[in-house]
Amino acid sequence: MTVLGIDPGYATVGYGIISDDRRTPGADEWGCVKTSKSDGEPPKRLGLIYKGITNLIERYNPESMAIERLFFARNTTSALQVSEARGVILLAAVHHEIPVTEYTPNQVKVAITGSGSADKKQMQEMITRLLRLPEIPRPDDAADGLSLALCHINCSRGRR
Amino acid sequence: MTVLGIDPGYATVGYGIISDDRRTPGADEWGCVKTSKSDGEPPKRLGLIYKGITNLIERYNPESMAIERLFFARNTTSALQVSEARGVILLAAVHHEIPVTEYTPNQVKVAITGSGSADKKQMQEMITRLLRLPEIPRPDDAADGLSLALCHINCSRGRR
Repeated sequence: MTVLGIDPGYATVGYGIISDDRRTPGADEWGCVKTSKSDGEPPKRLGLIYKGITNLIERYNPESMAIERLFFARNTTSALQVSEARGVILLAAVHHEIPVTEYTPNQVKVAITGSGSADKKQMQEMITRLLRLPEIPRPDDAADGLSLALCHINCSRGRR
Repeated sequence: MTVLGIDPGYATVGYGIISDDRRTPGADEWGCVKTSKSDGEPPKRLGLIYKGITNLIERYNPESMAIERLFFARNTTSALQVSEARGVILLAAVHHEIPVTEYTPNQVKVAITGSGSADKKQMQEMITRLLRLPEIPRPDDAADGLSLALCHINCSRGRR
């Protein structure tokens, strides 16, 4: 199974692609789809996010997408923008008939470290070890994308 | 000029299409794109919203889209869902290279009635009169879509 993990954002969408066809899950790619004010008005930026995610889907043909669920955020304007980005990311999945599973940050922490109180550094170190990466994946958003994908693989194994 | 006005929502997207090629602006169509839980998971519903808006764009080939800007809402979960819907609506516009203008509810009220304190009934009566409709357009979301479109036509005239 190949999973596309997504840490949704407006300026930065973190992603990580993990396959568990090998004996242990391995990371195929990680990084960010970035947009900025210089890309144009909000609709244009949403177009770039959709295109970036679509490109990943077409290159890796994942069986699943795992994406972070958004809760109430203190900065509401930002939460509304991230939700718009989430909308076009979910649309890219549905346009390719890829099932989507949503996870809360807490679910991801528990799936990766066994503890809902793990901090960012502990999460990144665990991801690095579990995926046998030579160093902590950068930037943070890409590491979060990998965490989402690995969380989904672990949770799916539990369900099998 | 033909304008597609959008009152964004998740279960109900209101729309109105107005052309001002005639001496006075006239409504070509109004209605709603509706989705419900029975349509499936959230990504599937976003797919239906994108498809519904795309169909309208391809039938009427509007020069502009006018959409309501979302502010902080009391029910935040609902605001996040509406933002996801807004994301795919804006994407449909950018995929057809249609410029989008956002208006606050207050801007729409002022453009239609001259007063930011107009209530829903006053707005609907004014829309009905200005567009020479035989009766108040139903449902409310469709009337709001027409208001957005007419607001944009009035504001564009001011700018010309």
